Amino acid sequence: MRCFDFLRLATACAWVALSGCRPLLAPQPDSASLKPVSVILLVGDGMGDAEITAARNYLVGPEGQLSWERLPAMARVGTSSLVENAPHLPEFVVDSAASATAWSTGHKTSNGRVSTAPRTDAVLPTLAERCREAGIPVGVVTTSEVTDATPAAMMAHVNLRLCQGPADMKLCPQFRRDRGGLGSIAEQIVAQRFEVVLGGGRQRFEQRLESTGEPVSLLEAAQRQGFATLVRAEQLHGGLEPPVLGLFASGHFDRLWHGEPARPYPGSGPQQCQVRGRPNEQPSLETMALTALAILEREAANRQRPFFLLVEGANIDKAAHAADPCAQIGETEEFDRTVRAVLEHARQRGNILVMVTADHAQATQIVPHPFAGARSPGLLSTLVTRDGALLTLQYATTVVGASQTHTGTDVPIYAFGPGSDMIRGRIDQTEIFRIMVAALALPSAPGQLPSTRTH
Amino acid sequence: MRCFDFLRLATACAWVALSGCRPLLAPQPDSASLKPVSVILLVGDGMGDAEITAARNYLVGPEGQLSWERLPAMARVGTSSLVENAPHLPEFVVDSAASATAWSTGHKTSNGRVSTAPRTDAVLPTLAERCREAGIPVGVVTTSEVTDATPAAMMAHVNLRLCQGPADMKLCPQFRRDRGGLGSIAEQIVAQRFEVVLGGGRQRFEQRLESTGEPVSLLEAAQRQGFATLVRAEQLHGGLEPPVLGLFASGHFDRLWHGEPARPYPGSGPQQCQVRGRPNEQPSLETMALTALAILEREAANRQRPFFLLVEGANIDKAAHAADPCAQIGETEEFDRTVRAVLEHARQRGNILVMVTADHAQATQIVPHPFAGARSPGLLSTLVTRDGALLTLQYATTVVGASQTHTGTDVPIYAFGPGSDMIRGRIDQTEIFRIMVAALALPSAPGQLPSTRTH
Repeated sequence: MRCFDFLRLATACAWVALSGCRPLLAPQPDSASLKPVSVILLVGDGMGDAEITAARNYLVGPEGQLSWERLPAMARVGTSSLVENAPHLPEFVVDSAASATAWSTGHKTSNGRVSTAPRTDAVLPTLAERCREAGIPVGVVTTSEVTDATPAAMMAHVNLRLCQGPADMKLCPQFRRDRGGLGSIAEQIVAQRFEVVLGGGRQRFEQRLESTGEPVSLLEAAQRQGFATLVRAEQLHGGLEPPVLGLFASGHFDRLWHGEPARPYPGSGPQQCQVRGRPNEQPSLETMALTALAILEREAANRQRPFFLLVEGANIDKAAHAADPCAQIGETEEFDRTVRAVLEHARQRGNILVMVTADHAQATQIVPHPFAGARSPGLLSTLVTRDGALLTLQYATTVVGASQTHTGTDVPIYAFGPGSDMIRGRIDQTEIFRIMVAALALPSAPGQLPSTRTH
Repeated sequence: MRCFDFLRLATACAWVALSGCRPLLAPQPDSASLKPVSVILLVGDGMGDAEITAARNYLVGPEGQLSWERLPAMARVGTSSLVENAPHLPEFVVDSAASATAWSTGHKTSNGRVSTAPRTDAVLPTLAERCREAGIPVGVVTTSEVTDATPAAMMAHVNLRLCQGPADMKLCPQFRRDRGGLGSIAEQIVAQRFEVVLGGGRQRFEQRLESTGEPVSLLEAAQRQGFATLVRAEQLHGGLEPPVLGLFASGHFDRLWHGEPARPYPGSGPQQCQVRGRPNEQPSLETMALTALAILEREAANRQRPFFLLVEGANIDKAAHAADPCAQIGETEEFDRTVRAVLEHARQRGNILVMVTADHAQATQIVPHPFAGARSPGLLSTLVTRDGALLTLQYATTVVGASQTHTGTDVPIYAFGPGSDMIRGRIDQTEIFRIMVAALALPSAPGQLPSTRTH
């Protein structure tokens, strides 16, 4: 028995042990070539270690654990991107588009690009496209617009993330459909016909397709093409027939928690965050993830294939950009709940590789309580935990009034299930792609991708 | 064969594999009770993930690895301390004294305290003291004053870290020797007679002991008590007989690298760091660590015991406090070299548990290149890597002119060797103490510690 076999066996043991020693329903696959397993990739957008530590301190205290922190496999992930005009050089602070391109395609790109290569606009085939080729059903779930960078990089190819709807193509003329391009991100999402797409961003699909001579909205076009199109939470259920396109908000989902944003010294607070909830038509991330799972598992069983699901807690990042600690922690709490529910599901199934990561770190820092002698030049907010401890968060990557920026620190990845032995040490974001390819047992070279070959 | 056995076996396999499949010279001990192994704890002071990522980007590029990043075991470490007057509450940003107290004693304390309890001043027995009871030789090596917080917490007990020499006791009157206390940190270091203590801080030992009626300096007193006292690098060699007290600088060691400190927008640089080196009398951290190892291993062999060695790269933190990125990365480079040398030694020996961690995160953030639209309110410096990539670092936890503060994000711990299976998931700093107690096979309850019982 070689070392490698021991390690794989032991990892299998470890995750069974950590899942309460429930019986192992599926054998531990050989990471390279054995029986394929389904993959769920959960992304906390902008959820770096500082954001995780801050949320943990507030939600469960410093000795507590968020759902993914109990998992048996963990690695560190490097998040650099490339310089657009000198792609042999790294850019040390990544955006969500380049990050998501890395794990969606296995290739690094420059910031702002959606699964296209720097300088050349070359289309980089995505994991979701390769899944479709292999008959594997695909789901994408997010609390942002479904055309936002993270979901977009799995489903579309364009030179700039801003080109989300048919009317948003000013900076992407070469990708316009009336010029023979693949179209906006929303148009590509409809064209791709992935099995389940749930999130916000209805405004992009309500734009009319006049430029291509189709005087209807993209949403109407999708309905005509057989999509189950949903706009309210109560329309969402596991019995829906794919393709399902749920667009439950005009833009991004509303944020769940409310509080004073961070302010200049001495900062906002001390405050406790208020749970405000979302409008009724917006389902929770947990509900979307579990419903997508139900649809995908049925479809996968029919086809005797595994499935792939991407779940994004998108608004952690957006709240951090706004230096709004309560909104940020509230979105992290929802992501934590979602991961917990997905893990419980995966434990019961036994044949799903679950990975939890972030696309980049954000601006948050946990700092000492503000005092005049060492005041911060940034924005501060002091939160009061349930126990009465004082937690001061700082956002100081930009001057007052501007959006906070991402930061370049490595982020964590946690994993559970068969194949999680591949998560260890330090990896690059592009390796997440290769790990998913191996787990899903996709052919190692991409095949024909007609829908992305027109450009 | 139980799951646990598999996992231990597999971990043994993994670290043999990662060490080039050299033969396993010592069996993998049972973490709880089997054959004791030696322990080397290497601490990068203030070396959080942002500091590590920044150093890696500059030293070896984003795809490179620092020495500890190749190790098979890794965990995340929570670093909170306690509120002095309400020790049931966490303090979310720790200082080096409370951090070092956590792993030196297994108990949390409040910031500024050195192995004493909040409010009561109760003495918390240290791992080094328990080693001495068990006949295990102890070494402490640092690039700071040996009386600074991290080494102090292993060797002394006092209510405030500032009380480093006999003349520095203003804020620690109850610990003065002429009042029946244990004395300053320097006095306690001499009284403890640990086998090897190497670093800076000679000024504390040149203070006279007039208060106790001893009209000589502490250094002279140590010489009279049989210490080998060293003040220059060339006096240091592996043949020295313990106890060895090497004080190679008046204060902290000088910093190895030089560059422009970070400045307000648009910041200093673009610059490349200059290697300046240290004065001849200051040995490298690597030399100190390897020499301490030689002395300790000889002593341990004579006594048929394992040994314990603490190695601190102290000035990463001090450079970050000063917002000096070149000095910070230079000190990290030296720490990296030291860890590499120690790991090579441990691989040859096979019976040493090596752990590499940080005591807390610091202020460093990797940010986008400065531009007017989103300028940082803090201090910035742009470094040019060997490849010509631009790496911008920000320090913005305090206004210009004040020392940057620590931050409260979790830090990493990496481990190699027998017992490294205990490093996984997320642990508290106090658990590092318990892991070391288990590896060294120290009795689980502390015994009599006469030298620390007087207070």
